[in-house]
Amino acid sequence: MSSTKRRVELRSDTFTLPSPRMLEAMVAAELGDDVYGEDPTVNALEALAARLLGKEAACFMPSGTMTNLASIMTHCPRGSKVIVGEESDIYVYEAGGASVCGGVIYHPIPNNIDGTMDLDAIAAAFPPDSDDPQFALPALLCLENPQNHRGGKVLPAAYLREVTDFARENGLTVHMDGSRIFNAALAADVPVAELAGYADSVMFCLSKGLGAPVGSMAVGTGPFIRDVRRLRKMLGGGMRQAGVLAGAAIVALENRGRLAEDHQSARQLADGLEKIPGIAVDRAEPGINMVFFRVLSMDNPTFIAAAQAQGVALAELGHGQIRAVTHYGVEPEDIGYVLDVIRSILTDSTRRSHADHKPVLAG
Amino acid sequence: MSSTKRRVELRSDTFTLPSPRMLEAMVAAELGDDVYGEDPTVNALEALAARLLGKEAACFMPSGTMTNLASIMTHCPRGSKVIVGEESDIYVYEAGGASVCGGVIYHPIPNNIDGTMDLDAIAAAFPPDSDDPQFALPALLCLENPQNHRGGKVLPAAYLREVTDFARENGLTVHMDGSRIFNAALAADVPVAELAGYADSVMFCLSKGLGAPVGSMAVGTGPFIRDVRRLRKMLGGGMRQAGVLAGAAIVALENRGRLAEDHQSARQLADGLEKIPGIAVDRAEPGINMVFFRVLSMDNPTFIAAAQAQGVALAELGHGQIRAVTHYGVEPEDIGYVLDVIRSILTDSTRRSHADHKPVLAG
Amino acid sequence: MSSTKRRVELRSDTFTLPSPRMLEAMVAAELGDDVYGEDPTVNALEALAARLLGKEAACFMPSGTMTNLASIMTHCPRGSKVIVGEESDIYVYEAGGASVCGGVIYHPIPNNIDGTMDLDAIAAAFPPDSDDPQFALPALLCLENPQNHRGGKVLPAAYLREVTDFARENGLTVHMDGSRIFNAALAADVPVAELAGYADSVMFCLSKGLGAPVGSMAVGTGPFIRDVRRLRKMLGGGMRQAGVLAGAAIVALENRGRLAEDHQSARQLADGLEKIPGIAVDRAEPGINMVFFRVLSMDNPTFIAAAQAQGVALAELGHGQIRAVTHYGVEPEDIGYVLDVIRSILTDSTRRSHADHKPVLAG
Amino acid sequence: MSSTKRRVELRSDTFTLPSPRMLEAMVAAELGDDVYGEDPTVNALEALAARLLGKEAACFMPSGTMTNLASIMTHCPRGSKVIVGEESDIYVYEAGGASVCGGVIYHPIPNNIDGTMDLDAIAAAFPPDSDDPQFALPALLCLENPQNHRGGKVLPAAYLREVTDFARENGLTVHMDGSRIFNAALAADVPVAELAGYADSVMFCLSKGLGAPVGSMAVGTGPFIRDVRRLRKMLGGGMRQAGVLAGAAIVALENRGRLAEDHQSARQLADGLEKIPGIAVDRAEPGINMVFFRVLSMDNPTFIAAAQAQGVALAELGHGQIRAVTHYGVEPEDIGYVLDVIRSILTDSTRRSHADHKPVLAG
Repeated sequence: MSSTKRRVELRSDTFTLPSPRMLEAMVAAELGDDVYGEDPTVNALEALAARLLGKEAACFMPSGTMTNLASIMTHCPRGSKVIVGEESDIYVYEAGGASVCGGVIYHPIPNNIDGTMDLDAIAAAFPPDSDDPQFALPALLCLENPQNHRGGKVLPAAYLREVTDFARENGLTVHMDGSRIFNAALAADVPVAELAGYADSVMFCLSKGLGAPVGSMAVGTGPFIRDVRRLRKMLGGGMRQAGVLAGAAIVALENRGRLAEDHQSARQLADGLEKIPGIAVDRAEPGINMVFFRVLSMDNPTFIAAAQAQGVALAELGHGQIRAVTHYGVEPEDIGYVLDVIRSILTDSTRRSHADHKPVLAG
Repeated sequence: MSSTKRRVELRSDTFTLPSPRMLEAMVAAELGDDVYGEDPTVNALEALAARLLGKEAACFMPSGTMTNLASIMTHCPRGSKVIVGEESDIYVYEAGGASVCGGVIYHPIPNNIDGTMDLDAIAAAFPPDSDDPQFALPALLCLENPQNHRGGKVLPAAYLREVTDFARENGLTVHMDGSRIFNAALAADVPVAELAGYADSVMFCLSKGLGAPVGSMAVGTGPFIRDVRRLRKMLGGGMRQAGVLAGAAIVALENRGRLAEDHQSARQLADGLEKIPGIAVDRAEPGINMVFFRVLSMDNPTFIAAAQAQGVALAELGHGQIRAVTHYGVEPEDIGYVLDVIRSILTDSTRRSHADHKPVLAG
Repeated sequence: MSSTKRRVELRSDTFTLPSPRMLEAMVAAELGDDVYGEDPTVNALEALAARLLGKEAACFMPSGTMTNLASIMTHCPRGSKVIVGEESDIYVYEAGGASVCGGVIYHPIPNNIDGTMDLDAIAAAFPPDSDDPQFALPALLCLENPQNHRGGKVLPAAYLREVTDFARENGLTVHMDGSRIFNAALAADVPVAELAGYADSVMFCLSKGLGAPVGSMAVGTGPFIRDVRRLRKMLGGGMRQAGVLAGAAIVALENRGRLAEDHQSARQLADGLEKIPGIAVDRAEPGINMVFFRVLSMDNPTFIAAAQAQGVALAELGHGQIRAVTHYGVEPEDIGYVLDVIRSILTDSTRRSHADHKPVLAG
Repeated sequence: MSSTKRRVELRSDTFTLPSPRMLEAMVAAELGDDVYGEDPTVNALEALAARLLGKEAACFMPSGTMTNLASIMTHCPRGSKVIVGEESDIYVYEAGGASVCGGVIYHPIPNNIDGTMDLDAIAAAFPPDSDDPQFALPALLCLENPQNHRGGKVLPAAYLREVTDFARENGLTVHMDGSRIFNAALAADVPVAELAGYADSVMFCLSKGLGAPVGSMAVGTGPFIRDVRRLRKMLGGGMRQAGVLAGAAIVALENRGRLAEDHQSARQLADGLEKIPGIAVDRAEPGINMVFFRVLSMDNPTFIAAAQAQGVALAELGHGQIRAVTHYGVEPEDIGYVLDVIRSILTDSTRRSHADHKPVLAG
């Protein structure tokens, strides 16, 4: 394996660097002051996003966190409940913003191994008597598709239909955290608009697999987007010549074909890992640009440090698994390298372990 | 059983009516404007409560809900998490006030059958990295003792020690929802101050088993009570001649010996119910003034309506159980009557069920 | 003046003690659990209040602060502005609750000497462009009648008509802080329902001139009251056997004729004060149960302490004036005593001042 | 004047387009994921900003609004008051975010014609008794320098010293909205760190006169910035490859010498306007990159539309004045053109007005 300067970033697709074409687009973008709605590149991006997702309108936002926050605040009046997965990014990784900024109560319910939440559990979020003032009332259901923390699971179409029918019958609005919705659509082999169609509003990230440097989109009805835009200003997401970012984002959306390569790389990685003794892959079907696996013979920090020493950046995420995310900048030959590195770590470990009969952690 | 005007209120001890001595005390109370701290009867009540619970100071509040809300707001800065039982009254029955008024995020964790919450689950509320701004940080742990929704369970002393040690080691403040803490202390046969000693602050209700018409107390350190008092004004709990209520409350606290009769009545009720076929009692040891039971041969609404028709008021609470609460105004002979009523309902039901082979609900 | 134990409380009508009839009513009240809507005395009080004010519904609340807070939260969505008088009790004395609990922005505008706010100033609270997300939008106008801090001024009928017409034309809901609205109606010689008719919702206090020990009322439409009741629970204003308080409150409302005596006493006091050299009375026409005056030859703390030493309790309130408030418990002969005391203080002061040529404060 | 395609954007310096060097820097920037603190260009920008302002630390933010919001939330606990100018951008143009997201109460006080706020008015924001729970307590004073709405006024050094001394003596933290602090420092001919030294924390904009496409900076102590960074994530201001923006921002900061040209252009414009009959210039000394003036013979919408028709974009801002802002992209020859346009509008207007004796608005 020898000394190498090679570096493969698999911790997250948020690390993706912009492509040359994106950088060119940033420089070439026609600009204006987007706070006044006068940035033509932002306006073009918003029109494109709305069209792709099959919604009336869209709004460019600095992050997925702000998009989810503004969406929840728009859908949920003060004092109402938002039903979220206990392992959803909204509940776990967004610092509780909806309670702080919106006076909204999170009602977390368990995520199953396939990313779904049971309808019974959703039903239990409703009080026995909605007129009884002791109870906060649910207003919104958030779905995450694909579900990240449970292994990048794409929610099945049948489930999406069932859960959103249930929501509507019970007066719940549906927001979809689709930060990687283009990956989900590709994996499920349906147009992204079909997935978006299950929800009243959708958030998706331009800065993950799509590869843009900064930004996310809110999409939904005209009135929803108008309210999100108001909140964007209040939260501080109104950016001036945001067209520099939107220019790159348009390229990202136009070149989303790239995602197929990432899925292929992830499959290649999963296939390879399954052949390495001591590795258990949590294979999702259909898969996206993520591989979740468990290292059986070594604790995670030791394994991650050993990979890191050879330029392979990995991270633990949820339930003690390692997550590897493929994206622009990770090429097929990198996957081969990663498999070599992991194989060598586990072989060395086994050898050492056999040699001195000491536990791995002492090595 | 014939036609009867008898009425036994077992839905809750919140229905307790004030005793003649309380009414006399209300009339005789020396009054002032408590918003200015000039009501001598309120001041006497606060001193008494602090002394009984072994804390520095106390504040009279219009309700347990406001006491819990102001306590959480005092302990939890905006954006922090309060760890609560998934079946705690604070999380289920208090309309999410801490998120609305305090910008605090509820982090619910499961309550076990004995009312406890696992230390592992509490530990899991802490993020892997407290410097990572993605995560809201826990600030407060709320214990409920006795735990109502899980069957009026008195938390074991060993658990209280263990969980509060754990909390302190991890930088969590502890608030005890002790709305029935005097029942818990009686059942556990320890001074109430010993139970209060596990927590930094305690709420208890004057208006439940203690029988006062209105009010709850916050107790804790001097600075804590000063902050609670500020919040009480903001929330609108500053009452003028509150001494009329405090007068009754002092009588309630001085006559808390009454609780032993309620516990005895509850035991009598549980013993009797256990002998009725078709009833499964969820017996808590030690017991308080509550009996939780399940009716096996009949659905709850039918059973409750049948009891109601004979003057016995009962309610369902949690996990499909019926809860019966004894209190001032429910005397030993009432318990005999209640048992007769329940017996007759189940007998009639069985007879009818056998006679016509129709399901109970059709009866 | 000699040594005396006499005490005349003129700081506020919030100090009023309940009458014997009120205490009897508290004891005799039929009670239930008001959180379940089962307290018949509370229900009777709410029906009476709604009828008197000419509104659909009413809700009994523990304080005026909570009533105003819940009213603002009901009328104002998160992020909207409430227009308030810069010297209104809502803005000055209620701890900013609407921003804390409701995410509502206070927009204070000056109160004129007669208590009114200029329509131009109200108009200026609207942004040049309501679609521009930089601006919070006004949702509610709060009127205070009578206006306390500016001298207990009763708002003129012509102004009420004009300002509420203006509000409605501009899409503002109107809430009236009528904590002393019965005094205003008596002074203006109109039915209280006529004053209430200008507003969408009204708060009035049972515990000020009306003399009940505790409580205020929210009145308005059915849906408004339903929402206020929900918020009351969340804020912690749901009280159990609140009928003990409601019983006294019903007596207070039935005996509101008493207010005429208080107005007469205030007039007597103002007349007397005007004859004392060194006193400047800020005479309001029509007057209520308050007299505002300035002591020209002495600083306020010295004057208040001197009066206090002789059993007359007074307080400074707004713009360096002394406020004296008459109420149940302050009888005509007390007014004579108060005038004697004040006269003697000023005479002694002048004498001493002449004798030793030292400034008053050094005396 | 004939048909022209020339366009001079004077509405705001927020419209400034990035220079070629900035665009190059965006493309060349070394990038990483800034949410993980791994974007080297952002880190370099933060170090540069802290050094220039003489503070311990800095944080890159998507907007001035978020910077002010996170700063207020860091300095002000829930329920405290922030003292702001009645005409400050924070109070007028930032949608009330501190009340919504922070539970903070705005306490607006008048801005004098020179932008200052009277110390007496600041003192009046403190309650007579800070222990009295009726009152929200002030925690923070916000200064705006230069003060935009009152005419781009640079606060005098003597005032800054006096007001910040007063603040500290009274326990107030001081935050400076220095969105154009580099303009203020240039105009006052002092190092920017001297101005920043008056405040505990400072916000400045990269996207106004400095010309960067997007972004603002928070600067202050290490602990302050750590808290701001946490809030940035919660509010949704954590951006991924933010280095593309930071690269441009570093160029902006390094080329801030450009501001002198803008000030010179503004002076040239003011000088020219003063010579046009019918124009009254509100001359600020020292001046920045703004000219405020009044058109005496014409209403503002008519005047603005007439200028717009000839490619000169102007806007009204505050007290019926027109504000013209110079910035990168507005060159000395543009100023001559602007003066020609304005002169011609007023001449035509006068001529027409004389000719047909009709009011201007009918023209």
